[in-house]
Amino acid sequence: MVSSVAIVAGLGNGSGTGGAAARLFAKEGYAVALISRGVESLNALASSIKESGGKANAFPVPAYGPDEIAAAFSAIHEQYPSSEYAIKVVIFNIAQRTWKPFLQLTAEDIRESNKVNIESSFAFARGAILAFQQNEAATSTGKGTLVFTGATASVRGNVITSAFASGKFAVRALAQSLAKEFGKQDIHAIIDGAIATGNVPGDRNSPPSGPVENSTPESKLSPESIAAAYLYLVNQDRSAWTWELDLRPAHEKW
Amino acid sequence: MVSSVAIVAGLGNGSGTGGAAARLFAKEGYAVALISRGVESLNALASSIKESGGKANAFPVPAYGPDEIAAAFSAIHEQYPSSEYAIKVVIFNIAQRTWKPFLQLTAEDIRESNKVNIESSFAFARGAILAFQQNEAATSTGKGTLVFTGATASVRGNVITSAFASGKFAVRALAQSLAKEFGKQDIHAIIDGAIATGNVPGDRNSPPSGPVENSTPESKLSPESIAAAYLYLVNQDRSAWTWELDLRPAHEKW
Amino acid sequence: MVSSVAIVAGLGNGSGTGGAAARLFAKEGYAVALISRGVESLNALASSIKESGGKANAFPVPAYGPDEIAAAFSAIHEQYPSSEYAIKVVIFNIAQRTWKPFLQLTAEDIRESNKVNIESSFAFARGAILAFQQNEAATSTGKGTLVFTGATASVRGNVITSAFASGKFAVRALAQSLAKEFGKQDIHAIIDGAIATGNVPGDRNSPPSGPVENSTPESKLSPESIAAAYLYLVNQDRSAWTWELDLRPAHEKW
Amino acid sequence: MVSSVAIVAGLGNGSGTGGAAARLFAKEGYAVALISRGVESLNALASSIKESGGKANAFPVPAYGPDEIAAAFSAIHEQYPSSEYAIKVVIFNIAQRTWKPFLQLTAEDIRESNKVNIESSFAFARGAILAFQQNEAATSTGKGTLVFTGATASVRGNVITSAFASGKFAVRALAQSLAKEFGKQDIHAIIDGAIATGNVPGDRNSPPSGPVENSTPESKLSPESIAAAYLYLVNQDRSAWTWELDLRPAHEKW
Repeated sequence: MVSSVAIVAGLGNGSGTGGAAARLFAKEGYAVALISRGVESLNALASSIKESGGKANAFPVPAYGPDEIAAAFSAIHEQYPSSEYAIKVVIFNIAQRTWKPFLQLTAEDIRESNKVNIESSFAFARGAILAFQQNEAATSTGKGTLVFTGATASVRGNVITSAFASGKFAVRALAQSLAKEFGKQDIHAIIDGAIATGNVPGDRNSPPSGPVENSTPESKLSPESIAAAYLYLVNQDRSAWTWELDLRPAHEKW
Repeated sequence: MVSSVAIVAGLGNGSGTGGAAARLFAKEGYAVALISRGVESLNALASSIKESGGKANAFPVPAYGPDEIAAAFSAIHEQYPSSEYAIKVVIFNIAQRTWKPFLQLTAEDIRESNKVNIESSFAFARGAILAFQQNEAATSTGKGTLVFTGATASVRGNVITSAFASGKFAVRALAQSLAKEFGKQDIHAIIDGAIATGNVPGDRNSPPSGPVENSTPESKLSPESIAAAYLYLVNQDRSAWTWELDLRPAHEKW
Repeated sequence: MVSSVAIVAGLGNGSGTGGAAARLFAKEGYAVALISRGVESLNALASSIKESGGKANAFPVPAYGPDEIAAAFSAIHEQYPSSEYAIKVVIFNIAQRTWKPFLQLTAEDIRESNKVNIESSFAFARGAILAFQQNEAATSTGKGTLVFTGATASVRGNVITSAFASGKFAVRALAQSLAKEFGKQDIHAIIDGAIATGNVPGDRNSPPSGPVENSTPESKLSPESIAAAYLYLVNQDRSAWTWELDLRPAHEKW
Repeated sequence: MVSSVAIVAGLGNGSGTGGAAARLFAKEGYAVALISRGVESLNALASSIKESGGKANAFPVPAYGPDEIAAAFSAIHEQYPSSEYAIKVVIFNIAQRTWKPFLQLTAEDIRESNKVNIESSFAFARGAILAFQQNEAATSTGKGTLVFTGATASVRGNVITSAFASGKFAVRALAQSLAKEFGKQDIHAIIDGAIATGNVPGDRNSPPSGPVENSTPESKLSPESIAAAYLYLVNQDRSAWTWELDLRPAHEKW
């Protein structure tokens, strides 16, 4: 019997959504393949998961370009041969957060934002779909689940978010296109909207300028809760799949 | 220590979403209070839940008017005194499905649709909010969760759905207004969109005229899966609440 | 050659969107049929239009119930026989604005809101469609145009707007259903979203509680501009019809 | 007194939306500055406008990169000095239509799609905003209007549209961000959604695979009607600006 693999990409310092998802899926018995640019943080996260009894391997990439991502997928396939493993989950948690008044954006800012937010999402989706298609029989939950981390900027443009929102809107379009194209192949694509305003301390998906009005636990979007949502979505059976999920703290004003 | 109560309203013959939710919450240890118009089906469902070891009581109503609903809530409060019980979940699964070409709709059709779809949703919401506010301390999941069953018609009007879609759009507006007004009181309001086209056999939320193209398990939205989604939503912690959830079969064209 | 008739319903004191639309369509050569509850204001508006050289007639109704509305349409047909006139435009500008915290809403508030906002919209739509179907040949702009006045509450529920937003969401569902059902009959249904926040002085479609921060002309949604939008929509040719139009002041924060 | 300039970018062979907009604005007295890649078609369009008595100049670009676009704006400013001219309208009608099943998309396809659809939209927006800010006093319609041509793919991803929809979603995010950032500077940003399905013969914004079911005039989205919508939007006064406009043929199924 094969073991399940979950790939988590975009881990930052390991304390956010990506790290929480990696820890949760490891705890659930998945071998987790971690992809990120910061080698040190990446290794620290892999070690900490292993120390807690989980299976984890780090696959650092120098950049989120299509070639680097394809190489990471090759390395993962080598590490987890299909005779023993099935890649069942891919979590795309990469984001280039560029918050600037429009006229301050350079052509390079926009190109870099498109590269990290959009091109990489297509490359990860490609790796995910190809891997899932290798999973011969679909289980009740399907052949595989691809989760894109969303943000308020996935559904709403705003002052100073033109570059970031363009990137996140584009990823939402990709997620919807994939859901429609690959649902019938039992491949589940999801965008998970971790909606939060700037008054959430430490929230990296909202502009930093907002006032920190509320810092009670009820007003903070916790990475662990987002990870729990991902696990639920991965476990949805094929008769009732979600494409888009919104998440916000109970006490948030919206 | 108090026991948790889940109220489920709108049960039809017990084989749909309402029945599945009642059985699941009973299995999870909730005392389930069942509200519906058909006494016989209602008693049969309560009996079957009890036979499976669950706690269930039937509260039949002659109609879904505000007075009848208020009376049902009074009876439930009496049956489950707050010294021993806490009403934590209310599932509003009532719908009047009127599918007619616009010019065939009578004034009575529209009035009846508004009464059953909209007025009753306000009355149930009132009962739910008042009950939840009695739950003194909020747990990690909040003081209570109110789930409205949605449909494709909650977000899209279509030929022959003007009356039904008007009712479901209105319920969605109510759910959003409540989520915004009562989130800060730790009360969680949700609309759960069981999206499905007419090609899903037995789907009561879509017009009956659609062709039955696919009838594989992967193309049928199962009540049990919807109920599982409700349970997940009820268990979300306050740091990451969902307001709207879409659900559709993997193989559905959308 | 027949003359065109525009019916405008919901006129308040004549100074808002309905009044501006009536004046504009009269100026464009339409005979305007005015429907409203306040006889005095209604007659004053009709007189003022006539004094400016337009054609106008008042059709007061005691209430916005389906029977009263059907009677008004009968009177209009009698006044404007199809041998000489063609009803080409119906503008539904009626709204019952109930802004209350949810728990303060009575069952009567909700019933009344549904009656005025929703039941009346169905009744006007019925009258409009039946009248348009009598217009034998479609011109380039179609057989007739039915415009529903929208509001922020048509697309967003909020604290204290549960009743009003439910009504406006329902009307939006109706408008979409009609656009889909009757587009192929060359009948154009539109919802025109006059979006505005509470900081617009005198705006009747937003809750009165908002602070009046800006009162420059650029931050005020003018009834005349909304009427101009209606005229543009009525004149759209059949190859490119709009279903929903948003309108907001240039200086509004959104 | 200064003359008004309208810049139209993305003209194809001159028979579509861009060409129709150029002809209409020229007819309305604007000097039109035409930007496109195909020199021959561009010159032919400019000539035909001049022959009809309009003012037009061609500004061919070798590619839609930020440098080329900046150079075109410089050339336009030189041609139309601010002492005599005011750039009041910029219409962004450029699109790279890539319709492929997801797994057939190459990294180059995606990069090219992002470049033409997104990077160029940012570069045109930059040129437009900077030009509008030079227009000292805002007239009743504001300092300038920037219109982005939309498509069904601006709001809905679908099978074979992942690249195109990502690009169009991104442009919609840009348009919304700009509308929010620059509305208070009296600059009007709009996305105009020329919604059409594949059954519209000759529609370049929908995938070519759809069946050509209806080819009556009522089922074809005419470029002239879209251009008329642009003119209406440009003439909206500041009290009631539209951000997004949907357009579809009367007889279209949606």
